[in-house]
Amino acid sequence: MKFLLFTFVGVVHLFSLNSGKAIYKNDISQRTFQEVKEEIAHYGDVAKAIINLAVYGIARNRSYERLALLVDTVGPRPSGSKSLEKAIQIMYQNLQEDGLENVHLEPVKIPHWERGEESAVMLEPRIHKIAILGLGSSIGTPPEGITAEVLVVTSFEELQRRAPEARGKIVVYNQPYVNYSKTVQYRVQGAVEAAKVGALASLIRSVASFSIYSPHTGIQEYQDGVPKIPTACITVEDAEMMSRMASRGNRIVIQLKMGAKNYPDVDSFNTVAEIIGSKYPEQVVLVSGHLDSWDVGQGAMDDGGGAFISWEALSLIKDLGLRPKRTLRLVLWTAEEQGGIGGFQYYQLHKANISNYSLVMESDQGTFLPSGLQFTGSEKARAIMEEVMSLLQPVNITQVFRAGEGTDINFWIQAGVPGASLLDDLYKYFSFHHSHGDTMTVMDPKQMNVAAAVWAVVSYVIADMEEMLPRS
Amino acid sequence: MKFLLFTFVGVVHLFSLNSGKAIYKNDISQRTFQEVKEEIAHYGDVAKAIINLAVYGIARNRSYERLALLVDTVGPRPSGSKSLEKAIQIMYQNLQEDGLENVHLEPVKIPHWERGEESAVMLEPRIHKIAILGLGSSIGTPPEGITAEVLVVTSFEELQRRAPEARGKIVVYNQPYVNYSKTVQYRVQGAVEAAKVGALASLIRSVASFSIYSPHTGIQEYQDGVPKIPTACITVEDAEMMSRMASRGNRIVIQLKMGAKNYPDVDSFNTVAEIIGSKYPEQVVLVSGHLDSWDVGQGAMDDGGGAFISWEALSLIKDLGLRPKRTLRLVLWTAEEQGGIGGFQYYQLHKANISNYSLVMESDQGTFLPSGLQFTGSEKARAIMEEVMSLLQPVNITQVFRAGEGTDINFWIQAGVPGASLLDDLYKYFSFHHSHGDTMTVMDPKQMNVAAAVWAVVSYVIADMEEMLPRS
Ligand SMILES: [Zn+2]
Ligand SMILES: [Zn+2]
Repeated sequence: MKFLLFTFVGVVHLFSLNSGKAIYKNDISQRTFQEVKEEIAHYGDVAKAIINLAVYGIARNRSYERLALLVDTVGPRPSGSKSLEKAIQIMYQNLQEDGLENVHLEPVKIPHWERGEESAVMLEPRIHKIAILGLGSSIGTPPEGITAEVLVVTSFEELQRRAPEARGKIVVYNQPYVNYSKTVQYRVQGAVEAAKVGALASLIRSVASFSIYSPHTGIQEYQDGVPKIPTACITVEDAEMMSRMASRGNRIVIQLKMGAKNYPDVDSFNTVAEIIGSKYPEQVVLVSGHLDSWDVGQGAMDDGGGAFISWEALSLIKDLGLRPKRTLRLVLWTAEEQGGIGGFQYYQLHKANISNYSLVMESDQGTFLPSGLQFTGSEKARAIMEEVMSLLQPVNITQVFRAGEGTDINFWIQAGVPGASLLDDLYKYFSFHHSHGDTMTVMDPKQMNVAAAVWAVVSYVIADMEEMLPRS
Repeated sequence: MKFLLFTFVGVVHLFSLNSGKAIYKNDISQRTFQEVKEEIAHYGDVAKAIINLAVYGIARNRSYERLALLVDTVGPRPSGSKSLEKAIQIMYQNLQEDGLENVHLEPVKIPHWERGEESAVMLEPRIHKIAILGLGSSIGTPPEGITAEVLVVTSFEELQRRAPEARGKIVVYNQPYVNYSKTVQYRVQGAVEAAKVGALASLIRSVASFSIYSPHTGIQEYQDGVPKIPTACITVEDAEMMSRMASRGNRIVIQLKMGAKNYPDVDSFNTVAEIIGSKYPEQVVLVSGHLDSWDVGQGAMDDGGGAFISWEALSLIKDLGLRPKRTLRLVLWTAEEQGGIGGFQYYQLHKANISNYSLVMESDQGTFLPSGLQFTGSEKARAIMEEVMSLLQPVNITQVFRAGEGTDINFWIQAGVPGASLLDDLYKYFSFHHSHGDTMTVMDPKQMNVAAAVWAVVSYVIADMEEMLPRS
């Protein structure tokens, strides 16, 4: 019944349909899948103990309370900021005080961009103060600002078609929200494409599933050989309004002022803690989230939640006196928002040991009530993950979806290591993502408890099984 | 079946349960309810024609387009502002050009408050820029601002209990959102209650069902004999954060600067247009919304939508060549947000004619897809309204709820005139209400079409029936 239900998410059941008989084809392991299933089934009591502790026991609400204390104390933690380094120092101390092992910091050079003062005012057809958030890595405007007429487009195609109109203007993108990965191209490439056709600046409709006049920031990328122009996000509301105005033939003029500046790289750290494996200490299951955030809101959701359920996973396992055969390694990444700088540095430093990585996990899409686990790996590994997720039946989160990912773990996944991420309510996530609204108010302690339980069960069982997850 | 379904909203079916036999008890009218039912049933074709024109015909999306043009052109329309007066002049012209009758302006003196520049910064326990919106009628701070420690309370009761702690402080209210009418007491009375215990200013958690770090403004009221202190709304997020900080024993210090100022009253107008009744021109069915708004967003939802579906109701009826027996009067109120100033003035001017008012209608709770009609009136009148609403079966909006209301029509309702309002998705409404997010982006042309159809059918049929709605 469960297996039939699962088919709608596109999962191929190589083993489960004739479980007990099937064996791994071409597998180095001689164990039947039935043996693996039985091994996993033996973790039922451990899974229940983890769930009980996380959801009903003394650890209840702990990850929420820990997170609230950190983000209320240090606030948002942008790459290069004092508050990020303060957060790293606090976490270093927290992890030691929590009794975790091999707590240490791994140095990373990270970008340092600051938005400074910024403002935009519509001067024509009527005076209107426009909410903006400059985009990460954008240059600023001259102190007097850039005052120019606006060209509104809804796509890169329209910009190409109307290229002759763009010269000397501020390009406003009013692209519809399709999904994050598609629509974010406008935020990332908007300035470059506008600059190519001679625009002075670009203002991009926030990449958001829902808006209460909320601008959403994020990284953007310049291209060698293309002039750098200032670029910021505006609200969905203002993008739509300017689109309506333009369609009525109104001339729109905006004055844009941005004090944004890129400073030299600064020293930062990935924060690491472990529960060292009892039998295969050199083998690793990595659980992670990123500690940096954007400079608005509190970075509670992106990615305080992911970082803190990852810590919580180790805390829960330690509190229960468990020690898996493999090493459970917690990494709190730095400068994820700048393009996975911490994650890339970690990969460079540790990739020589790649054959010992059983699973890499990152939670960076919300820690609300999870829909399930996203997973990338061989079909054999997927079948094992499905069995492991069935241990989470008590909290009714058992689904294994496709496409496990995370900016910081993608380096490993692309090199063939199985990868898992937590799938969540993405509509909610992208309502708050990179906005002033990313605060503790979005977070729910009960939901974090469940997310932490999922994270702990998966990481512990995979770290403790007899064999590493099979690769392709 | 329909009647049984209806009982869950608490409607008493004096007549419908034995329809065809029942007569009005003690009624001056000699008609049976069955006769009234039959009369209403004859409007089935008219109702369908209105619905077809509004939802599928050439009038489709008209109220949305008209509204977008107005609010994009003039922006928000606070009481006392040039933009409100500009909007009134535009509407005066619009209504004349639309071919409506007796288009005129009725003078009203209205308050003139401006927020000026305003800001709040948390200085302790960490630097944090706090989003605020000063509340209507609030005084400003001295130019250097008010810098003081914060006392966070979650209720007026807690403020009373901790009164000795409040002196010389800024009181922050972190009251939970229960519903608008309950919770809004904190916005309206918060300053007075804080001033009574010696506070220097008050910051009130926005009265909102949902937040993306969005402050919501609105009117507040000082009391004679109580010192006036500056007062503003903060976001749900910051109120909750300060509550957490206070519960951890953090000392919180805020610097509040508000340039708010009350200016002398200015001249404004209620905007009136009619379709004059063919048989009883002195009798009136009033349809209305308010043209003023707060000074943030576009006032598209509150109450552009209500004003424009009211206009649309008359447009639809006129376009179909219909002329009801009674006069259909459109009123676009001024200065509703200041406490129904325009509505009160209108009542004073017209109450001598109260016996000729069959029904007063106001839409001021959103023009999304309506749940139905809220109605206050005698049970006889309610039974008639239910029959009228059954004409809206084609758009599946037939329910009649209790408690028709509207700031501007309550004067009439309290004096015994039947009153109706449009009931809508209040969670959505209070997500955007009085915030920067009240823009055309919230509005949906298809939903406005349906809302306008409901509004037009109800107002036309009640205006055209043989008899006025019976009163208690
Ligand atoms: Zn993130
Ligand atoms: Zn209103």
